[in-house]
Amino acid sequence: MSIIVQKFGGTSVADTEKIRNVAHAAILEKELGNDVVVVVSAMGHTTDGLIKLAHELSSHPSEREMDMLMSTGEQVSMSLLAMAIQEQGHDSISLTGAQAGIKTEPAHMCARIIDIDTTRINKHLKEGKIVIVAGFQGICEGNEITTLGRGGSDTTAVALACALKAKRCDIYSDVEAVYTADPRVIKTAQKLKVISYEEMLELARVGANVLHPRSVETAMLNDMPMRVRSSFKLDDVGTLIIGADKMELNKPVTGLACDTSQVRIIICDVQDKPGNAARLFNLLADNNLSVDMIIQSYARKATNTNDIAFTISKNDLDKFNSIKDKINEIVNASNIFVDDDIVKVSVVGAGMIDRPGIAAKMFDTLARENINIKMISTSEIKISCLAEKKYSDAAARALCKAFELDGASVADVKGDLPDV
Amino acid sequence: MSIIVQKFGGTSVADTEKIRNVAHAAILEKELGNDVVVVVSAMGHTTDGLIKLAHELSSHPSEREMDMLMSTGEQVSMSLLAMAIQEQGHDSISLTGAQAGIKTEPAHMCARIIDIDTTRINKHLKEGKIVIVAGFQGICEGNEITTLGRGGSDTTAVALACALKAKRCDIYSDVEAVYTADPRVIKTAQKLKVISYEEMLELARVGANVLHPRSVETAMLNDMPMRVRSSFKLDDVGTLIIGADKMELNKPVTGLACDTSQVRIIICDVQDKPGNAARLFNLLADNNLSVDMIIQSYARKATNTNDIAFTISKNDLDKFNSIKDKINEIVNASNIFVDDDIVKVSVVGAGMIDRPGIAAKMFDTLARENINIKMISTSEIKISCLAEKKYSDAAARALCKAFELDGASVADVKGDLPDV
Repeated sequence: MSIIVQKFGGTSVADTEKIRNVAHAAILEKELGNDVVVVVSAMGHTTDGLIKLAHELSSHPSEREMDMLMSTGEQVSMSLLAMAIQEQGHDSISLTGAQAGIKTEPAHMCARIIDIDTTRINKHLKEGKIVIVAGFQGICEGNEITTLGRGGSDTTAVALACALKAKRCDIYSDVEAVYTADPRVIKTAQKLKVISYEEMLELARVGANVLHPRSVETAMLNDMPMRVRSSFKLDDVGTLIIGADKMELNKPVTGLACDTSQVRIIICDVQDKPGNAARLFNLLADNNLSVDMIIQSYARKATNTNDIAFTISKNDLDKFNSIKDKINEIVNASNIFVDDDIVKVSVVGAGMIDRPGIAAKMFDTLARENINIKMISTSEIKISCLAEKKYSDAAARALCKAFELDGASVADVKGDLPDV
Repeated sequence: MSIIVQKFGGTSVADTEKIRNVAHAAILEKELGNDVVVVVSAMGHTTDGLIKLAHELSSHPSEREMDMLMSTGEQVSMSLLAMAIQEQGHDSISLTGAQAGIKTEPAHMCARIIDIDTTRINKHLKEGKIVIVAGFQGICEGNEITTLGRGGSDTTAVALACALKAKRCDIYSDVEAVYTADPRVIKTAQKLKVISYEEMLELARVGANVLHPRSVETAMLNDMPMRVRSSFKLDDVGTLIIGADKMELNKPVTGLACDTSQVRIIICDVQDKPGNAARLFNLLADNNLSVDMIIQSYARKATNTNDIAFTISKNDLDKFNSIKDKINEIVNASNIFVDDDIVKVSVVGAGMIDRPGIAAKMFDTLARENINIKMISTSEIKISCLAEKKYSDAAARALCKAFELDGASVADVKGDLPDV
């Protein structure tokens, strides 16, 4: 018997009516002859409500106590889901992260899973039960409750699927599938039948809010097939995420994404001496500032200085401002300014690896729309350009057309992949 | 260093403002030089809200999943309280029932505590921390979460106090103290400075909603001093509950209570043959019906029948009606009728043991008020009379006057009791 792991996000379990629907989805899979493990997030805005209570009491609540508080959210939704499944005539049991054997490192609010002891889950599956597991949480040494941080429930689901040697991990949310582009902007954007882990990772990083990168990385490392599906359209199989080697690529570009959640920092006239950039980015890393695109200009001979520009998340801007003085001590810049009028437009595709000219075609397409490119960064399967924010939709539409993302299927499963 | 266990009910932690107040109460006790363990219930109406969600999904939700669901309530309030204490500059840690070592029998929704492993609590107390423990919950074999049923948090607090060899267990609620009578009815009712476990038990059973009987029983068995106090008047020491042997009794009656939560069942013309009553009350017990007062009349010679009357809780009336036919099969009665127009008026006092005439005085007092007594039952330290419901307040006022419950102190602590 194959094991299927399903994960349902907060909007899928937002009220008891929706929980009944999730129970139905789990039972459908069970009735197909599979063993079913369901990972759930907290109901709707429960987590936000708990965080609000904590902040009424403390501006910096202890991370250990925050984990105690937040882990209750999933415990509520999982026990309600078990009741709903039982009410529909199937046997079910809910397990906390601790009961499910999810062991993490001893860190609060951002712990990583280090091991899963699947004994208890396997026992309940053998008893014919649909097993519900709390997402987002685990237990560390000393019987302490930990949480996994953002995207934690996706990570729980994929890690469980790998540990249980499941056939597939289905991530259900209010998103029906992965699209070639944001369907709210590009009306002709196409649902992707299949996408590779690598492409999904690039799309996840550039702002397609479908899956958390950590879960995709874990799936990729373990070659675990994932499906992105809608909990409100159970007959739709959504998008399959597998290794690029198992895919038939018809087009060089699989998808595109626009990200307006970043700001650009420009540091002018940095003294061009060895180690300056290293010191700068070490300081940023020490302060937990994730940097995305980085560009350093050629040194100006006259002044022996250059400009360094990079992008960070808007959410990190306060943190950045608090260390601005330290940065100036290091780099002695003539000016540091922040540009928040930017959009990062990216095209992603495993097919671009052996097809030259994709970058040129992207720049050309943007130029024809009179969109000025502020920064460029590339990886093997991705090209990102920074532009003025107002061009976001126009850029997306033009690139979608240029790379044929609004037409027929971009990729398909190669050969006889087992039924996933 | 002495250990003080404090327990705060749902109304005391109903919002973050009140939680801050509880944090203050815990810190006050800590600053008196004591080690402090705080047991909390779920915030305000949280438990009711969770039960409502469960019943939206199932008319008979699984008890195991109900425990998973309900145990989150205390986990929320305890972590918030730990944050509030930390914010006020004291070290604190919250522990679930499982983390606090509270082991119960393997039963759901009504488990009894069988053992408390205090290792972890003692460790944190030694570190100088104020330890917060979730009330109402424990863990049983197989790492399963259990809850203790009604009054569970009071029981957790007293059981912890006993296991930790605490100096005292303080039960904080919205009630300031134990009174000689209900102060909402008898304006001159007096706060009791001290009351014995036995008297408190009788008062608790007859409807003074201050403490759950199970917690008082546990305290009595372990000779653990308790205090009933108000979380909104921290400078008031409330009522001390200790062994009767440590009390100086000034008056035979300590308190009175009126209970309108019962109904009287009268079974007419039961055949007077051996074993009939036993079969009847066994049937009631098998159906989990707790019977309070019981009266069997003398057998009528002509018919060789008698009448049996007893009282049960109003909440159990549906359950009783569902077994009415079975009762008739057993006793073959001429009639079974239900009288819900009753009040049970009780006077309680350890001092009545060696003072005759208390019952006579009670009946006489009621007679002077023209109150007809429907049933009578007595214990060593209690006399209860059933009357028509409309006489509830008049009976209370007259008895209060007759037994001097509205004047000076009823009892005091004998000799040099250590500072509790």
